[in-house]
Amino acid sequence: MTAGTAATDTAHPAGTDTAVLDDADLALIDAYWRAANYLSVGQIYLLDNPLLRRPLEPADIKPRLLGHWGTTPGLNLVYAHLNRLIRAHDVSAMYVTGPGHGGPGLIANTYLEGTYSEIYPHISQNATGMRRLFRQFSFPGGVPSHVAPETPGSINEGGELGYSLVHAYGAAFDNPDLLVCCVVGDGEAETGALATSWHSNKFLDPARDGAVLPVLHLNGYKIANPTVLARIPERDLCRLLEGYGYRPLVVAGDDPASVHRKLAAAMETAYDEIRAIQEAARSGRGTAAADGEPPRWPMIVLRTPKGWTGPREVDGIQIEGTFRAHQVPLSEVRTNPAHLELLAEWMRSYRPEELFDADGRLRPELAALAPEGNRRMGANPHANGGLLLKGLDLPDFADYGVDVPAPGASTSEPTRVLGTWLRDVIRDNPTTFRMFGPDETASNRLSAVFEATDRAWDAPVEPGDDHLAPDGRVMEVLSEHLCQGWLEGYLLTGRHGLFNCYEAFIHIVDSMVNQHAKWLKVTRQIPWRAPIASLNYLLSSHVWRQDHNGFSHQDPGFLDHVVNKKAEIVRIYLPPDTNTLLSVYDHCLRSRDYINVVVAGKNPAPNWLSMPDAVAHSTRGIGIWEWASNDNGEVPDVVLGCAGDVPTLETLAAVDLLRRHLPELRVRVVNVVDLMRLQPASDHPHGLPDREFDALFTTDRPVIFAFHGYPLLIHRLTYRRTNHDSFHVRGYKEEGTTTTPFDMVMLNDLDRYHLVIDVIDRVPGLAIRAAGLRQQMVDARLWARRYTRDNGEDTPEVSEWTWPGGRPAEPGHAPAPSRAPERA
Amino acid sequence: MTAGTAATDTAHPAGTDTAVLDDADLALIDAYWRAANYLSVGQIYLLDNPLLRRPLEPADIKPRLLGHWGTTPGLNLVYAHLNRLIRAHDVSAMYVTGPGHGGPGLIANTYLEGTYSEIYPHISQNATGMRRLFRQFSFPGGVPSHVAPETPGSINEGGELGYSLVHAYGAAFDNPDLLVCCVVGDGEAETGALATSWHSNKFLDPARDGAVLPVLHLNGYKIANPTVLARIPERDLCRLLEGYGYRPLVVAGDDPASVHRKLAAAMETAYDEIRAIQEAARSGRGTAAADGEPPRWPMIVLRTPKGWTGPREVDGIQIEGTFRAHQVPLSEVRTNPAHLELLAEWMRSYRPEELFDADGRLRPELAALAPEGNRRMGANPHANGGLLLKGLDLPDFADYGVDVPAPGASTSEPTRVLGTWLRDVIRDNPTTFRMFGPDETASNRLSAVFEATDRAWDAPVEPGDDHLAPDGRVMEVLSEHLCQGWLEGYLLTGRHGLFNCYEAFIHIVDSMVNQHAKWLKVTRQIPWRAPIASLNYLLSSHVWRQDHNGFSHQDPGFLDHVVNKKAEIVRIYLPPDTNTLLSVYDHCLRSRDYINVVVAGKNPAPNWLSMPDAVAHSTRGIGIWEWASNDNGEVPDVVLGCAGDVPTLETLAAVDLLRRHLPELRVRVVNVVDLMRLQPASDHPHGLPDREFDALFTTDRPVIFAFHGYPLLIHRLTYRRTNHDSFHVRGYKEEGTTTTPFDMVMLNDLDRYHLVIDVIDRVPGLAIRAAGLRQQMVDARLWARRYTRDNGEDTPEVSEWTWPGGRPAEPGHAPAPSRAPERA
Ligand SMILES: Cc1ncc(C[n+]2csc(CCOP(=O)(O)OP(=O)(O)O)c2C)c(N)n1
Ligand SMILES: Cc1ncc(C[n+]2csc(CCOP(=O)(O)OP(=O)(O)O)c2C)c(N)n1
Ligand SMILES: [Mg+2]
Ligand SMILES: [Mg+2]
Repeated sequence: MTAGTAATDTAHPAGTDTAVLDDADLALIDAYWRAANYLSVGQIYLLDNPLLRRPLEPADIKPRLLGHWGTTPGLNLVYAHLNRLIRAHDVSAMYVTGPGHGGPGLIANTYLEGTYSEIYPHISQNATGMRRLFRQFSFPGGVPSHVAPETPGSINEGGELGYSLVHAYGAAFDNPDLLVCCVVGDGEAETGALATSWHSNKFLDPARDGAVLPVLHLNGYKIANPTVLARIPERDLCRLLEGYGYRPLVVAGDDPASVHRKLAAAMETAYDEIRAIQEAARSGRGTAAADGEPPRWPMIVLRTPKGWTGPREVDGIQIEGTFRAHQVPLSEVRTNPAHLELLAEWMRSYRPEELFDADGRLRPELAALAPEGNRRMGANPHANGGLLLKGLDLPDFADYGVDVPAPGASTSEPTRVLGTWLRDVIRDNPTTFRMFGPDETASNRLSAVFEATDRAWDAPVEPGDDHLAPDGRVMEVLSEHLCQGWLEGYLLTGRHGLFNCYEAFIHIVDSMVNQHAKWLKVTRQIPWRAPIASLNYLLSSHVWRQDHNGFSHQDPGFLDHVVNKKAEIVRIYLPPDTNTLLSVYDHCLRSRDYINVVVAGKNPAPNWLSMPDAVAHSTRGIGIWEWASNDNGEVPDVVLGCAGDVPTLETLAAVDLLRRHLPELRVRVVNVVDLMRLQPASDHPHGLPDREFDALFTTDRPVIFAFHGYPLLIHRLTYRRTNHDSFHVRGYKEEGTTTTPFDMVMLNDLDRYHLVIDVIDRVPGLAIRAAGLRQQMVDARLWARRYTRDNGEDTPEVSEWTWPGGRPAEPGHAPAPSRAPERA
Repeated sequence: MTAGTAATDTAHPAGTDTAVLDDADLALIDAYWRAANYLSVGQIYLLDNPLLRRPLEPADIKPRLLGHWGTTPGLNLVYAHLNRLIRAHDVSAMYVTGPGHGGPGLIANTYLEGTYSEIYPHISQNATGMRRLFRQFSFPGGVPSHVAPETPGSINEGGELGYSLVHAYGAAFDNPDLLVCCVVGDGEAETGALATSWHSNKFLDPARDGAVLPVLHLNGYKIANPTVLARIPERDLCRLLEGYGYRPLVVAGDDPASVHRKLAAAMETAYDEIRAIQEAARSGRGTAAADGEPPRWPMIVLRTPKGWTGPREVDGIQIEGTFRAHQVPLSEVRTNPAHLELLAEWMRSYRPEELFDADGRLRPELAALAPEGNRRMGANPHANGGLLLKGLDLPDFADYGVDVPAPGASTSEPTRVLGTWLRDVIRDNPTTFRMFGPDETASNRLSAVFEATDRAWDAPVEPGDDHLAPDGRVMEVLSEHLCQGWLEGYLLTGRHGLFNCYEAFIHIVDSMVNQHAKWLKVTRQIPWRAPIASLNYLLSSHVWRQDHNGFSHQDPGFLDHVVNKKAEIVRIYLPPDTNTLLSVYDHCLRSRDYINVVVAGKNPAPNWLSMPDAVAHSTRGIGIWEWASNDNGEVPDVVLGCAGDVPTLETLAAVDLLRRHLPELRVRVVNVVDLMRLQPASDHPHGLPDREFDALFTTDRPVIFAFHGYPLLIHRLTYRRTNHDSFHVRGYKEEGTTTTPFDMVMLNDLDRYHLVIDVIDRVPGLAIRAAGLRQQMVDARLWARRYTRDNGEDTPEVSEWTWPGGRPAEPGHAPAPSRAPERA
């Protein structure tokens, strides 16, 4: 082990490394490690003959060898040493595996400690069980190759690399007694998400939160390449980690005994330092914000060979200690007797006869090395967070509603009002609810929450800063990855939260959402995994109102993205106004195992529904707005569907125009809050039965649907409905820039004037009769555009429009220029 | 300026900071900076009265104030100092703006240097032009608020933060004489993409590539929060940057004169160090790989107040130097006379009368500070890469094709064959083509490229490493963000490339793809932006063949994601075999301004088409496979559509079953390579006219469509086609795990047996007649599943199936168990 200059002042000093393990301990821990390695190799290769009681034969070998060896010995090593630490100090610890392809290692360890057989009794702790353990791995009908939901103790599948450390921090928040050990692959460390996750330490409060112990697993390689962090000078590596705010303890070597000694010592040191930081903070001896010097959390750099203890060389090519150890070091075991012999040698090198008794049971002196009960990392309830989950204490959202004497008679900023309710959710749930966002909580007008709490910030505070404190419950960092990953970790360990984000940039975490959705889908089929709180999004500053920004900030496609997920998981809500938003969000915070996507406006907008109406409407998820319709009891000539706040506004403004200009036209307005109501009942649990759908949208009348997102999404949800051919959808068609709100809707033909044109074009017989009105609408669009060019804002007709309410339908005129266009 | 301990050994020493600028230079550069600041403020606020020749009035002010001031003075400062450096050393330099919301600054600078007026003559360099310059900014019909494609010299819009540095490196590759200065926002630096982008220096070859000069803009704040990097101890910050491999030069202060002096000195130092590194490498005096010590590139840490030179305090609240300077420091200028007065004061503080002459022209002694011609950063042709673009010298792909005596009569691994062609593309285009991938080039079986080149790697090499060299042309790093961003930067500066990636994980860059698509969409409407090479994806290890991995690696949803982009930009290809893949990829590498998504298999699979047939088929993009159809000249009873290699295989195997069991059934097979052919011609330039579509798919026969991705995508593309109601699509329905290839297709009902069932269920009149066959198919599925459970691999019937070719249709039997199920 050589620590670079920069590291010497902080790295673990040499010479103390025999203090922790005496020779007997060392022999035991090494045997435990060998047992885990043995079981890992067995899983990758064997169908039968688990204890090698007879010579290996080709028929003992799986026909398809699917697994990853290279990372596994390192994962097993860390697990064994954590077991020791847990027992020595009675620690509640979790294990987060970055390189999740090391599935065999985690399965092996949870099997050794007994949790695996408790959960899966047929995988018993004897020879029969061991045979099944081996056979099931990466086998059809068996278990996946990764540290999947099926693996006890896991909250991180680790298939898509990069999210281990951020999940670990999410788990540690508000769990003051928890130690989350997180193995980070050195390849994984190159991902963007991981590279910024190290900074999570500035958002962890040592007084209130638990600790994360990162172990950077420097096995030197990824699939086919060396890793950056393994090849930069160690001096640079230590500087980097120190720069991130850690104190790296370097453990390096390829001699097991020496590495065991050093790792045990490093773990002790790390644990001591963690406890010291926590005690200082908890005894009020100060935190970063107070004394200006942030706590310097320890971490371990573990530099050992990839595929350590595996075949050193195969067919004359070096395997151990190279990238070639990544997957299956011996690939022709069934057909090449030399490979078969190498496998047998390799497995025997662990001396299974010393590890397991005649029945295949782990010898008692080794079994005694595992912690007991819930201290076993596979059994820690935090890793099956649903077990610990308690419902939130939610204030009655109805008390926060806005007054709506008549539809459109008052205005409010939906997210601002929601903020007042969230403020009290935070106040009433001081340790189990957090909000996450990429520096946009205020921009999304949720600032009321800062009446109850601060932003979490464990670095120095300066005058002029706004609501920063180590124990703040609003997590803000300019990384959507961190927001998402922290929240996931927080939810997976049994707590609640929401992620508020600009709509466009939520795509940054598309792939993380995929992985979380997959996790939820699988856990629903695993009886021992208890349901967790839903992952709740609040997407604001949405496509239609990115006023300060431009085209790059305009993208409603996240809805399309989540619709591909399993129907049982995904819910999408587009509340049209403030009271509906409150009702919807209350529902989301009570739900379990879903991904709830809520899109809501932040700008002043009309309130359409009183609280009782909002509750009814959002519970139904879809409904006719009778006060806006005039088809009373008859078949309408046209249905105007709408989903989303801005499309709803434009639709109602179009209805107003239609009423004035074509009062005899029978118009029905259907508003959709719960987008999944549109899907067939067979496809989604929220799907409307066809009969109800047909009743709402008719079976033959034109439907002009104004939609918040890309129009194709509505088609994709409704293509099997009877009346689908009559659906004409307006929405975002990827036209945008920095301009006025109404110019934005006009650019995408979603504006009131265009909706009227669509009605005229599509209601049979109207085209000729209403040609004059059609032309007025075309002119109105031109005029409205011209007006923005001249004045930089929308016409008063548009910006001051209000719903006429009970106003009797009277023939009127198209909006006239309120003043002559000024020529610029 | 205080540099922390860790920094002192590398940071720029104090005392030399007057050496570069004498007092006269200083006065001039400061005036230039003031001019840029003045023009920036003018753009945010003014409609008129650009030179403040009369008192400001409310009517001079824009009604909507949309822009970002806080970042702008810093951006302007760096620009002015780069101008000096360019002139002093005749440098070819580009400016990449991380905080792209600083649009006013970049517009101001390109206006000052003259490029803006050359491109947009109506924005002339006089009072009239200045008025228009101000008015157009963030104004309807004007220009966006960000550093958009409309901004000369830009390759990075900077709306979605995080991609500046990776774009900068992409631009520098293979441009040995280029200096890319990249301002990184300190908030932006918190994003995942940016946090890993610093490591790009290990992939830059000082001999062959240009240089990147990062300027970390530590203005202390983001929207509403301080930034992490501004608040950690400076000692940690410097360690972090040193750990990343840089030598940080810290320039800090809030006194303009002092900062000018230090920044000029730091720029000189940085430039000298860059040149020294380059000269050492280019004179063969060694690179990292040779002597083990990587080059230590300089960078600048610029710590100045956010909103510097703006209003210090407004309404008693501090603005300058806080997050409150982020957007519009004075928000009520039109209505609040005090604000109006503050604005006037602020603008006058730049002393415009010293900067512009009576006509509003920049005074000549200031104009002389800008570089000339193409040395102006707004005019550097690298920033309008299409100008420099040359077509690739492409070897004839037909020479690389596989022999296909008859359909299905031979097999090959498509990507492996493609690799041989790519090898020669690399060989023949040694400075203009690169491949990018997250450590998966070998895994995706493209290894033939390593016969022609290596992987780029500018860190030490060890024995056992595989094809690493500083000048390698394959860029591998475990970060999809870096692959995507480097490639984007490389393309935007006029070169070519492709990104090979596991299909599932390409979602990691969904949002980057959005931004690139938006960029392309806008540049198509900008006459002075020349077309660039397309962004080409090669997605392999796709959803159906992620054998070693599991559910987390199975996601074909990227296709859905890109379909939302503008039709004129997006192309999706699903070549069914090797020769088609070659033909498609040749087309992609010749195309311009597209995003081409190609999904291809890497596993051994049947070759269906000879090269001439493959060329014809892929050029058509869709077609009847007559050799697989038996509807000769008649209307078919059923159409079997297919898109993707695995679905095509299953479809043909289903056809084989149908031929044998229902020889009288008239089956037509339609294969789709170019997915966009399915869309209506009105929606996509590749869309088939309805008449052609109807001819292929009939207007009333059942269509069983086997699709590579999520079935809803096919519905979304075809919902307007006559026969859409008869389309029955099978594809991925989010069911998966680690299992056999055939079990995967069965899990999703895409298998041959299920396709036969679908035919039976949907061809009118067949259900009763073919009930026996239907039952056989159900049994065959059960048997095939059972077989995998027992044997761990697919049945021989499936895995050894081949297309019968000319075999005459003969009634046969359903596949029978080849041996009795072994009970495990
Ligand atoms: C985001 C992502 N990109 C690519 C891959 C493909 N992949 C699987 S394992 C691996 C290498 C991992 O290297 P490292 O993190 O060092 O793990 P270890 O060496 O411990 O196996 C890669 C690139 C992936 N799983 N996730
Ligand atoms: C990925 C992403 N997330 C969020 C935002 C919203 N946003 C716009 S500007 C900004 C703060 C930027 O701070 P910094 O990079 O320090 O720039 P500067 O201080 O120079 O304005 C944020 C969070 C964004 N543009 N991109
Ligand atoms: Mg590794
Ligand atoms: Mg900043």
